Amino acid sequence: MSMPAMHDSATFADMRSITLQLTAPLSAEDQVAQSMPDASPTKWHLAHTTWFWETFLLADLPGYEVFDPTFGFLFNSYYNAIGERQPRAERGLLTRPSLLQVHDYRAHVDKHMERVLAAPTPQQATLVDLGINHEQQHQELILMDALHLLSRHPFPGAYTDAPVESSPAVDAAWHGFEGSIVDVGHDGDGFAFDNEGPRHQQLIGDFEIAGSLVTCGQFAEFIADGGYERPEFWLSDAWAAISRDQRQRPLYWGDDGESIFGLHGRHPMDPNQPVSHVSFFEADAFARWADARLPTEAEWEVAALRLDAINGPAHFRSGSTYHPVGSTADTTGLMGSLWEWTSSPYVAYPGFRPATGAVGEYNGKFMNNQYVLRGGSYMTPAGHTRLTYRNFFPPHTGWQASGIRLAR
Amino acid sequence: MSMPAMHDSATFADMRSITLQLTAPLSAEDQVAQSMPDASPTKWHLAHTTWFWETFLLADLPGYEVFDPTFGFLFNSYYNAIGERQPRAERGLLTRPSLLQVHDYRAHVDKHMERVLAAPTPQQATLVDLGINHEQQHQELILMDALHLLSRHPFPGAYTDAPVESSPAVDAAWHGFEGSIVDVGHDGDGFAFDNEGPRHQQLIGDFEIAGSLVTCGQFAEFIADGGYERPEFWLSDAWAAISRDQRQRPLYWGDDGESIFGLHGRHPMDPNQPVSHVSFFEADAFARWADARLPTEAEWEVAALRLDAINGPAHFRSGSTYHPVGSTADTTGLMGSLWEWTSSPYVAYPGFRPATGAVGEYNGKFMNNQYVLRGGSYMTPAGHTRLTYRNFFPPHTGWQASGIRLAR
Amino acid sequence: MSMPAMHDSATFADMRSITLQLTAPLSAEDQVAQSMPDASPTKWHLAHTTWFWETFLLADLPGYEVFDPTFGFLFNSYYNAIGERQPRAERGLLTRPSLLQVHDYRAHVDKHMERVLAAPTPQQATLVDLGINHEQQHQELILMDALHLLSRHPFPGAYTDAPVESSPAVDAAWHGFEGSIVDVGHDGDGFAFDNEGPRHQQLIGDFEIAGSLVTCGQFAEFIADGGYERPEFWLSDAWAAISRDQRQRPLYWGDDGESIFGLHGRHPMDPNQPVSHVSFFEADAFARWADARLPTEAEWEVAALRLDAINGPAHFRSGSTYHPVGSTADTTGLMGSLWEWTSSPYVAYPGFRPATGAVGEYNGKFMNNQYVLRGGSYMTPAGHTRLTYRNFFPPHTGWQASGIRLAR
Amino acid sequence: MSMPAMHDSATFADMRSITLQLTAPLSAEDQVAQSMPDASPTKWHLAHTTWFWETFLLADLPGYEVFDPTFGFLFNSYYNAIGERQPRAERGLLTRPSLLQVHDYRAHVDKHMERVLAAPTPQQATLVDLGINHEQQHQELILMDALHLLSRHPFPGAYTDAPVESSPAVDAAWHGFEGSIVDVGHDGDGFAFDNEGPRHQQLIGDFEIAGSLVTCGQFAEFIADGGYERPEFWLSDAWAAISRDQRQRPLYWGDDGESIFGLHGRHPMDPNQPVSHVSFFEADAFARWADARLPTEAEWEVAALRLDAINGPAHFRSGSTYHPVGSTADTTGLMGSLWEWTSSPYVAYPGFRPATGAVGEYNGKFMNNQYVLRGGSYMTPAGHTRLTYRNFFPPHTGWQASGIRLAR
Repeated sequence: MSMPAMHDSATFADMRSITLQLTAPLSAEDQVAQSMPDASPTKWHLAHTTWFWETFLLADLPGYEVFDPTFGFLFNSYYNAIGERQPRAERGLLTRPSLLQVHDYRAHVDKHMERVLAAPTPQQATLVDLGINHEQQHQELILMDALHLLSRHPFPGAYTDAPVESSPAVDAAWHGFEGSIVDVGHDGDGFAFDNEGPRHQQLIGDFEIAGSLVTCGQFAEFIADGGYERPEFWLSDAWAAISRDQRQRPLYWGDDGESIFGLHGRHPMDPNQPVSHVSFFEADAFARWADARLPTEAEWEVAALRLDAINGPAHFRSGSTYHPVGSTADTTGLMGSLWEWTSSPYVAYPGFRPATGAVGEYNGKFMNNQYVLRGGSYMTPAGHTRLTYRNFFPPHTGWQASGIRLAR
Repeated sequence: MSMPAMHDSATFADMRSITLQLTAPLSAEDQVAQSMPDASPTKWHLAHTTWFWETFLLADLPGYEVFDPTFGFLFNSYYNAIGERQPRAERGLLTRPSLLQVHDYRAHVDKHMERVLAAPTPQQATLVDLGINHEQQHQELILMDALHLLSRHPFPGAYTDAPVESSPAVDAAWHGFEGSIVDVGHDGDGFAFDNEGPRHQQLIGDFEIAGSLVTCGQFAEFIADGGYERPEFWLSDAWAAISRDQRQRPLYWGDDGESIFGLHGRHPMDPNQPVSHVSFFEADAFARWADARLPTEAEWEVAALRLDAINGPAHFRSGSTYHPVGSTADTTGLMGSLWEWTSSPYVAYPGFRPATGAVGEYNGKFMNNQYVLRGGSYMTPAGHTRLTYRNFFPPHTGWQASGIRLAR
Repeated sequence: MSMPAMHDSATFADMRSITLQLTAPLSAEDQVAQSMPDASPTKWHLAHTTWFWETFLLADLPGYEVFDPTFGFLFNSYYNAIGERQPRAERGLLTRPSLLQVHDYRAHVDKHMERVLAAPTPQQATLVDLGINHEQQHQELILMDALHLLSRHPFPGAYTDAPVESSPAVDAAWHGFEGSIVDVGHDGDGFAFDNEGPRHQQLIGDFEIAGSLVTCGQFAEFIADGGYERPEFWLSDAWAAISRDQRQRPLYWGDDGESIFGLHGRHPMDPNQPVSHVSFFEADAFARWADARLPTEAEWEVAALRLDAINGPAHFRSGSTYHPVGSTADTTGLMGSLWEWTSSPYVAYPGFRPATGAVGEYNGKFMNNQYVLRGGSYMTPAGHTRLTYRNFFPPHTGWQASGIRLAR
Repeated sequence: MSMPAMHDSATFADMRSITLQLTAPLSAEDQVAQSMPDASPTKWHLAHTTWFWETFLLADLPGYEVFDPTFGFLFNSYYNAIGERQPRAERGLLTRPSLLQVHDYRAHVDKHMERVLAAPTPQQATLVDLGINHEQQHQELILMDALHLLSRHPFPGAYTDAPVESSPAVDAAWHGFEGSIVDVGHDGDGFAFDNEGPRHQQLIGDFEIAGSLVTCGQFAEFIADGGYERPEFWLSDAWAAISRDQRQRPLYWGDDGESIFGLHGRHPMDPNQPVSHVSFFEADAFARWADARLPTEAEWEVAALRLDAINGPAHFRSGSTYHPVGSTADTTGLMGSLWEWTSSPYVAYPGFRPATGAVGEYNGKFMNNQYVLRGGSYMTPAGHTRLTYRNFFPPHTGWQASGIRLAR
């Protein structure tokens, strides 16, 4: 199956526009603050994604002058090959440039990108595709980081005033698969991140996978059964982490145990809603309590392909009925409602080679102490994710839109 | 000598206006960021000073409704008697209320204060005087904290674009005093903070005090002589602190050893300029290197009184020729150019009793591990400081406008 | 292939005796100190291994009285199901019981174990086998932790005064294997830890593996080529770790770059000797520099089996010619010279179920942020390790006897 | 009043012998452990005091060879002028030299000291006096540190099996003094530490001081009245410290609120016994609760001199009836039962000059963030303390034998 080219002007312009739309509910003050070292200010995301275009597509263009020579230091994220940079935990100190100047920076780079997009070389086309996908990842990060910032306020406001829709009860059937040699990973036709390939064979055994995500109601049962007080459900590192943090429930659950904080603000917990923003540690403990386990990423990929073929596209991944927020209506095409933790540590596929040059730092160097998540979430931009997509986060983090699908 | 009453409407309005003027060079984004736990966002200062008026003067007024019931939590600084509050180190997370809303809060409170100021009871008059002096302290903090925030930016901008004036060479004469029983502290006539009294007698010995502050040129000699590498000049705690922080020069000196960062931005070091933003540890080490010592606060108070009587008001304290920044021209009446470290730990005067009620937490509870500074600085509002004023900071801090005057 | 039973009296007594022999070079003072939270005092190992016997084999025996009721708290390592315990990082505070009392404890438990060993039930036999293997693991930990403690002394002594033997040059040939479906893991015949099974099939591709371990001389080339200063060789977490710790060479290499600290004390680096006590991060970075990679654990297991069949038992694993220390001569039967890092995160094999009861905490709960090491080391007791053995350590640690074998 | 010379052979030998006697209840294992960075292993104290003699009295003696050239690094405490040293927090890693070797070191140095003591030069005589007083301070530290180590054991043993004596009820009368100019500090006749002089005049006002120390019963009332939950009694730093440490009672009080841990082991709290091992923060908070204050050190010195003159020697200081432990019976001549916190920060007396050379680091460099304690304790060696003695500790520490005497 061939994917349409992304590197045309309209796709680029639409994508850039969506980035700005996502920031509309946030004031200039909201956009400068950093709520934890893992999160970045909105303004920083706006500038960093623009710096990415400038650095990888424009910088070497004849006659192009960089918008501001200090931005290379300020808005490089982690590319050692590019040079020194602002420490990650101190991005909140960058009150300057102002948000308006960053908007100007975006406009400046957009204008110059037109030249590239008019007639890209193959290498440029590849980098444009990468840049679009990169900025889409930051679109999701903008939502994740804004949610986290809002949540840290003692009287938190909402990102959107759209009402929360109720979730219908879900079918909790198990779907069975027979063991076989399967092909996993991306075949190189159309855009994919380097870590999705090479496509290769794996041998998997018989397994069953749940037809829907674990719900808040089910997770509340786990808590009521002493889930957070019984070490037998937790990995040793997990137990140490929740003991140190005195964690008793998922990140965005209220102390009352009956409300949840989200982009809609604080609202009553809906038992049918998939439990979200859980860490790998929590997902793994829940699975052990439920006498099940998390799927491997190969199992997930096989199951997702098969179930979608039977039930219609994206049935498997979007079947869990978690709806995107009103203000991000452009993202209604989401393939899934929540990223789904797998049991697979994030490692290289056999034969993996990072891209050459600075963009080789994009994925490969993070292959340690992270777990793969599959699918996509209500925060993920439409069209961004795909069957072979490998998202990854450390096991203790819950600020990403992650849920739990069980296997056995 | 009697001081004029401060609690009239015009004094109040002028003071409130100056607070806002000081924030003019800063964007809304500058005003929300917190550069370290000791510093607060500008916006927080604007709201906290207003909360002080609302809490201590307006809250119990018949018919007054608090502007926003959440502000008591958000903008209480450290008054345990008032209630719970936002953790000090997390003031930078308060992106909401917006700066505009805080300006509205100020206007709302100012309007209601008119009622109080029209005919204050004696108790109200006392609290108004306290509130004015409280807000003036925050005016200085606004400058201190803004300077620190700007300095943490990798490409720091200036608070003001006024040019730096050069300093003339200064007379380094020693002035001698004979030992005697002296009266120190405030006599209660006119406003003073509770920690300035009671006025009492102390026995002091013969001493000499320097006619001018230590200059950057002199401090550079100390550095060149291995000052930061020779433990014999430093208190044990001081040596541990500079070793841990790898400190090799004062806080705002450039790594090049030839430039200084200040409200005017980065500019060449002027050897005649008094060395500023030094910690007590640095002042004490310099004094030991110079075979001298810091004055006690009693010595300082005696010397300041005597020398001003001879040379004209404020000669002693302003003789060090350090000029206030252009954009704070309203503050030209400064009594001094830099706060001057004394060797005196900040302890209660004999017979000290904190004020009753929540305002009793203003000064007394901080009497531990701090040293007294005397005089006033280029950042201090005109008319705020006085001969008996006791400023205090922990010995390792240098973000206040502090300098060194030697004694022996 | 069937392994002989371990649970006879003579095997037990020999194993217990070896534990004490290993402590002979250490004074009572050496045996009480804890050099880091990861390491334990020798005395604690002596007591903990004895507590293991008492708790799992003797406690429920009719008529048995525990030696000391406080030991359950003092010498439980990490079994939540057994109860509360001394914090791991504070084992060095346990100056009491004395070493002599711990020796008495060992004798007491040994005497009562005779009853069990005379006619064990099948369940007891299983636990005896586990206990023997458990204590053998602590024999290796005694050496690891003693080496670390000695290394932290500013004038470190040697564990043994036996001379260091020189290493011959090694054959660096690559051995090729064709991809296939292979069986990996333990088949359950004879003792194995629960994490070694179930035996299952994996699909592996073509690969080559090095015939010998990376040498100190080769690792010195990596350093000389800027290995520790070039981020492109390191995982992001690895780069953060070596930057934070200012690491410039392996743990036990001298600052001079020419000597190594080991059980023999400090001695000149032998270029032919396998580089040892490297972390996974270092092994992984070296492999990237060498344009190779680490083998997966399945590749390692296949290669080890095949090469030993051709070249005689244990050729593959012991071929790297690193000799055990003189004072542990009873351990001459080592299958390998150094544990070999694989690229495989330590996860459960398909179908893995931890043992029931408290011993289920033995392995499973540590399956996070650790990598598998295969083989065995000069510190491993004779007969302890086997082809399917899965050792594991976090990626930043280097106090275990670990080396590097390359694959591609 | 002239003190007899200390620098004769018999005094030296007796003092050295007492040091060893104090270690008798402790095993070699007890003597090597370090329970916190502030405390040192017993063995380290034994070696450090010996290193002091060797360094300052023997090293330059013709023909003397240092016992072991590594000991200068291992057992220097904090003398920068002497050279580099083992980090304070890592003294527990020094399992070598063994305790037996340290005993040999002591014997070696004692033998060579005979030469010096036979006919000391004036400068040697001064250093011998200093060395004796130095070692006596370490005798007290040996008891303090041993008590702390024992207390950290989950099943703590006792230092002595002597029974605890009950305390009689005490007279809680206030003693009044009229203000005047008084002489304080040491006059230089006989041995004193440099920080006790120069003797100088101070002006003090009228004051009253309590005739006895605050008792456990009184302190229990403070706790029962919510003392540890009410911020109004505590300095801001104190409140932060007890909040962070979740402190609810003095260091050695049992969680049951009814027992106390001491050199005798855990025993029931005696309401008449002076409350001991309280921090300055606790003493200051108690005084505020009791509507009183702590005395200044000048007040204390004046009162101690006057009350002893009336009531017989050392009445004031020993009147609090807290008896030394049985096993330290040689210390029955203690001038006081507990060190008494004063409100005075530890600063230099006017005209203070540290001794020249390395011994100048003895006292002066610690004059920051410490408070003066006066008197002496049940742990202080007989004859060591005196009226002008200035002990000092940071305000949060309670492992020294400190109590509370109120003033007003």
